[in-house]
Amino acid sequence: MLTVLGHNYIGGTRSAAGPAVLSSRSATGGASHPTPFHTATRQEVLAAADSADAVAVEYGALAPSQRATFLEAIAAEIDALDATFITEVARETALPIARLVGERARTSSQLRLFAEILRRGDCLGVRIDRACTDPAASRPDVRQYRIGVGSVAVFGASNFPLAFSVAGGDTASALAAGCPVVVKAHPAHLVTSEIVADAILRAVRRTGMPAGVFNLLYGGHEVSGWLVLAQPIRAVGFTGSLQGGRALCDLAAARAEPIPVFAEMASINPVIVLPGAIAEHPQEVAQALAASVVLGCGQFCTKPGLVLLLRSPHTSRFIECLQQAFASQAAQPMLHGGMLINYRSGIERLAGLPHVIKLAGAAFDNQAAPHLFQASSEAWLGGDEILQEEIFGPATVLIELDACDLPAAVAALRGQLTISVLGQPDELEAQRGLITQLERKAGRLLFNAYPTGVAVCDAMVHGGPYPATSDARATSVGSLAIERFLRPVCYQNYPQASLPPALQDSNPLGLRRLVDGVYI
Amino acid sequence: MLTVLGHNYIGGTRSAAGPAVLSSRSATGGASHPTPFHTATRQEVLAAADSADAVAVEYGALAPSQRATFLEAIAAEIDALDATFITEVARETALPIARLVGERARTSSQLRLFAEILRRGDCLGVRIDRACTDPAASRPDVRQYRIGVGSVAVFGASNFPLAFSVAGGDTASALAAGCPVVVKAHPAHLVTSEIVADAILRAVRRTGMPAGVFNLLYGGHEVSGWLVLAQPIRAVGFTGSLQGGRALCDLAAARAEPIPVFAEMASINPVIVLPGAIAEHPQEVAQALAASVVLGCGQFCTKPGLVLLLRSPHTSRFIECLQQAFASQAAQPMLHGGMLINYRSGIERLAGLPHVIKLAGAAFDNQAAPHLFQASSEAWLGGDEILQEEIFGPATVLIELDACDLPAAVAALRGQLTISVLGQPDELEAQRGLITQLERKAGRLLFNAYPTGVAVCDAMVHGGPYPATSDARATSVGSLAIERFLRPVCYQNYPQASLPPALQDSNPLGLRRLVDGVYI
Repeated sequence: MLTVLGHNYIGGTRSAAGPAVLSSRSATGGASHPTPFHTATRQEVLAAADSADAVAVEYGALAPSQRATFLEAIAAEIDALDATFITEVARETALPIARLVGERARTSSQLRLFAEILRRGDCLGVRIDRACTDPAASRPDVRQYRIGVGSVAVFGASNFPLAFSVAGGDTASALAAGCPVVVKAHPAHLVTSEIVADAILRAVRRTGMPAGVFNLLYGGHEVSGWLVLAQPIRAVGFTGSLQGGRALCDLAAARAEPIPVFAEMASINPVIVLPGAIAEHPQEVAQALAASVVLGCGQFCTKPGLVLLLRSPHTSRFIECLQQAFASQAAQPMLHGGMLINYRSGIERLAGLPHVIKLAGAAFDNQAAPHLFQASSEAWLGGDEILQEEIFGPATVLIELDACDLPAAVAALRGQLTISVLGQPDELEAQRGLITQLERKAGRLLFNAYPTGVAVCDAMVHGGPYPATSDARATSVGSLAIERFLRPVCYQNYPQASLPPALQDSNPLGLRRLVDGVYI
Repeated sequence: MLTVLGHNYIGGTRSAAGPAVLSSRSATGGASHPTPFHTATRQEVLAAADSADAVAVEYGALAPSQRATFLEAIAAEIDALDATFITEVARETALPIARLVGERARTSSQLRLFAEILRRGDCLGVRIDRACTDPAASRPDVRQYRIGVGSVAVFGASNFPLAFSVAGGDTASALAAGCPVVVKAHPAHLVTSEIVADAILRAVRRTGMPAGVFNLLYGGHEVSGWLVLAQPIRAVGFTGSLQGGRALCDLAAARAEPIPVFAEMASINPVIVLPGAIAEHPQEVAQALAASVVLGCGQFCTKPGLVLLLRSPHTSRFIECLQQAFASQAAQPMLHGGMLINYRSGIERLAGLPHVIKLAGAAFDNQAAPHLFQASSEAWLGGDEILQEEIFGPATVLIELDACDLPAAVAALRGQLTISVLGQPDELEAQRGLITQLERKAGRLLFNAYPTGVAVCDAMVHGGPYPATSDARATSVGSLAIERFLRPVCYQNYPQASLPPALQDSNPLGLRRLVDGVYI
């Protein structure tokens, strides 16, 4: 068993002023870890924010390549976490070992992607307009680049204990942007959080970073609230429920100095099934769709929770196939007991609706059984609110629609992370108006693909209109995520010697820059 | 006299359901325009938002070059507004004819800048990651670009009746981004607003744009509130007071679906005077500084409202010069009566502070007399709140500081649009830590230059930390302003024929794109 202290991390030291009331439970009801965890006091939360703030200028002023080296050092430490660690993460989350090994690699490769972005340098967004004395276009010398917004609070997700938690995407992109970080550990994986925090601190020491660049706090909602309200915090990254994310947004907006909250919250990720998709191989499509719903026990932000099936001669056969595909899926353990309770109440609420029937779904006890429901198109088009709500877990709702109702059905959708279309290419091409409509509703549009599995790359958008996220202009996966934590600043008429290197005429960082309107 | 109707503009038609209770007053107390203006009813506000929303998909899907043509058509219509128009603007605002002629040119050139940006195409932010089947880096085909956020509400500024009002920077950048606009006309220049709205609608018709792309409403705070709360509105641009901007932010944050507000609010634009700046030519520097303070009667967001003077053998002479420079400045009319009342109460509040003395400032009646105050460094370092507040008008506060107190004095600053340093280049270079500290406090840093006069170019940042703006990650002047109204969306695994042109392999728009991590 790994040694853990259960103390908060504040500016490179450990702190345990609060009561030791938190424990690292087993996801499947086994024994808790023997070490209790200390919830942070308000003073400790403020001390963590202050310790981040104290190094914000120093850390933000480091060369991008120095921050890249730091991120790569964290990546190496994450990669070095061994099987004992993975076993502990599995104990806390009930996620399979193979998945966690993959997630460890995803976490380190994500850190390396941001290191690469820093070395590429386009995130600095350099724009130089040189002085012009021509009276028709007279202007001073103005040079713009982007700097970190300041200290960032990160709230990790329960469903990605590595890739979207302590050293996950929000932390990686904030550190890349030059922002010190204060993480609030997710209560469902405390040991995981502590071991990852240790890994980050080893990287901090190894690369000579200021200690305050990384801080970690244990606690519940009260700690979350104190952190978002802490004066030095300048932005928030969050992945979790609509209720939790909105509460943080409301707190942040009511501050004396409001700050942006980038919350990734609730999405039902509709899959639109056109007739051509199921004319020939209904069974294969049904199996692939069911597999996407139950993957990771349906505990993905991008799990398809709604299937809009266009009525055709093939639909009844497809529904049968889907029913069979769900019926053959085994129950799986969920991330923690609260998740199971929420899943159960979600499917009970759905099952209780008069216009909803259950097509598949066994009774279950400790593990979540997959469920397939069918709702009437009238209920959807009539604006039923419950059908719009995300059920976290292996359940989805099918709605059979007449083709002529598709525009209205899409118009009724709330903001989504993803919308997928299954069909033949010519069917899609015949739907140009639909595509434009889908664009307004989601951050990512897929064709003949399933939304679970989010590639970490430059082009990825893991975002979308409210309530999918709190700010549709952001993504929390992919290299563009760094932009959430950057702001532009410009220098006017500064002498070369006093300009930041990125803005000097000699271009010592070798950046591609927009100079007098031309990229060079 | 120009013909005006005083009716709201909703989707290309005129509407006057509300009472005709608004009037276009003369800024200097002369006769009002004979036509009364109809305040919008709640139904009219919702109709305007709906009319924008109804064309959001169509307008947003236009090719960037079509939107560029539209913006150029508006620019041409603005340029064609004649001397009769300028005379009316001068009547409503008391701004000098020459200034307004310049502002008209600035307004049209701003529209043309955004047209140019659309033709340059980098605002589309295209990123393409092609499918990769290598198991080590397996990923699907993912392609990202940026689209408009949807309909935008614009609240014009009183101090730029053309360049930051109906066809000003917010409208231009929103229309460029593909967002239909609903403008709430500033009550202090109603005739100006109507004539500019007519110009825009001529451009709408001439270029075949959908009528709902531009809407204009008359009214007060109630109309503002209805507009920000209207469901289809997806973002807000505002220039004005801290109180007004914050009220809109609070409303927007409390919506069922919160929306971003880009409010440019309050800044005192500190000027830091290092000893070398005034050793040789104190009088020239004093005159230039005073000229920046009184320019446009001090009614600029970037007016220097605070002078931090480093104590040296030259300071007493400089203060004398500054005093003389202010004493020689004439009183000027303000934009409207309310502005004059606020200016008077602002300087009276300052003059009443025990640690503040008045160095210059005559009694005044209908026109604002320039004022120079001196406050003790103890009051500033002690955190006096009143010294932090912007006084809109030709007044500034001087504080003499010991050099060792400069870091603390800067640390005490709230967020600013600009911070200027006057001095010798070697003095600046000796202050590297100061520059990094200034970066955290402002959007634009100037050296041996004055902050009034904001160049409209790619590199400009007219933004900064709260309370300078509500979102430090944005600028409201310069081409980067378009980013406020854009959001990324990505396509995964879409067939070429169904991709937007910007994302197709053949690159029909001829864009510079990030493809597999390389700009080509």
